[in-house]
Amino acid sequence: MKYPNGAKNQIDNSVVNNTKATVFANRGMDFEKSVSLSASYYLEQDLAVIYKRPTPIHVVKVDYAHNFKITDAYFEKQSTTDYNGVYKGRYIDFECKETKSTTSLSFHNIPSQQIKHLKSVIRHQGIAFFLIYFITLQEVYLIDASYIIEAYEKGDRKSITLKQIKENGYLVEQGYRPRLDFLKIVEKVYFHGNI
Amino acid sequence: MKYPNGAKNQIDNSVVNNTKATVFANRGMDFEKSVSLSASYYLEQDLAVIYKRPTPIHVVKVDYAHNFKITDAYFEKQSTTDYNGVYKGRYIDFECKETKSTTSLSFHNIPSQQIKHLKSVIRHQGIAFFLIYFITLQEVYLIDASYIIEAYEKGDRKSITLKQIKENGYLVEQGYRPRLDFLKIVEKVYFHGNI
Repeated sequence: MKYPNGAKNQIDNSVVNNTKATVFANRGMDFEKSVSLSASYYLEQDLAVIYKRPTPIHVVKVDYAHNFKITDAYFEKQSTTDYNGVYKGRYIDFECKETKSTTSLSFHNIPSQQIKHLKSVIRHQGIAFFLIYFITLQEVYLIDASYIIEAYEKGDRKSITLKQIKENGYLVEQGYRPRLDFLKIVEKVYFHGNI
Repeated sequence: MKYPNGAKNQIDNSVVNNTKATVFANRGMDFEKSVSLSASYYLEQDLAVIYKRPTPIHVVKVDYAHNFKITDAYFEKQSTTDYNGVYKGRYIDFECKETKSTTSLSFHNIPSQQIKHLKSVIRHQGIAFFLIYFITLQEVYLIDASYIIEAYEKGDRKSITLKQIKENGYLVEQGYRPRLDFLKIVEKVYFHGNI
């Protein structure tokens, strides 16, 4: 299989002309788009520099005679996370996950490579977290990656409950601009201040 | 034009089967590969978490019936830099440039968007630098992005001289592993210590 689990999440819906992708994206808010728009807002307002990592693509064939057109390529598995950047000199790294469940986030969609990456980030004193979107509840939580890693490695359940997320994480405010004010929580949790 | 200036630099030679790319890459050391191998070495040795950003690709058409094969896509201009990551909690962001000149680095290959990005990184207290490979001399220098930005914005010359680079930058040690020990210089310059 040349495409990753959850390949549809890895596709930037703004650039893919495909009905399937659009249908998936329209279950409630377009989560990744909202996160990206919020990151763009922070950049415009000069509050933080956070970018979505481009989807890694394995290029097989390029047509140099026709404007470097790529004619054969495959989506690759992201071995790191969706977003990273800098806020007040600190390195920030986070992953977005969404679930239709109203009670828990299953880990089946979190590759072990991603957990390994987030552990490295924490060891190197970066700020690492997950943004989790509960589609049915229309709620987004920010939770430090350490809690997800702990639950992931316990291995007795292949998920973390919403209850655990609420206990250790923070509800992200939704608004117009930014759409999802996750930086406000980063400031509170990791810098103990206010923006 | 759908491909960026210096598109060949943006192509991961390991994945593109094309003679043209290979020929370009073989002028002396494969600079980007050496940087990536060094970053991998730091990751393995658990010294830092630094990754090359994937080349952004604008996907036009995906064949869902054939393993999500991408059949039409274009290389996009990287609006940020080649590499970023974390070292001792600090955000690190850098760009690699190479030149055949033995006296200066021309700026014609540095998009203004990249300068804007590096200025943001500096404003947010990240560590921002360039790694510059003088192909003919077989020398690599690390220079803080502020010097490049200053020279870029003066605009009287569209380049920075090797002399200026030597005065304000640092020669990067070459070896077997890591191939290019740029982290040693980061430690010295930004942390005033030794690894």
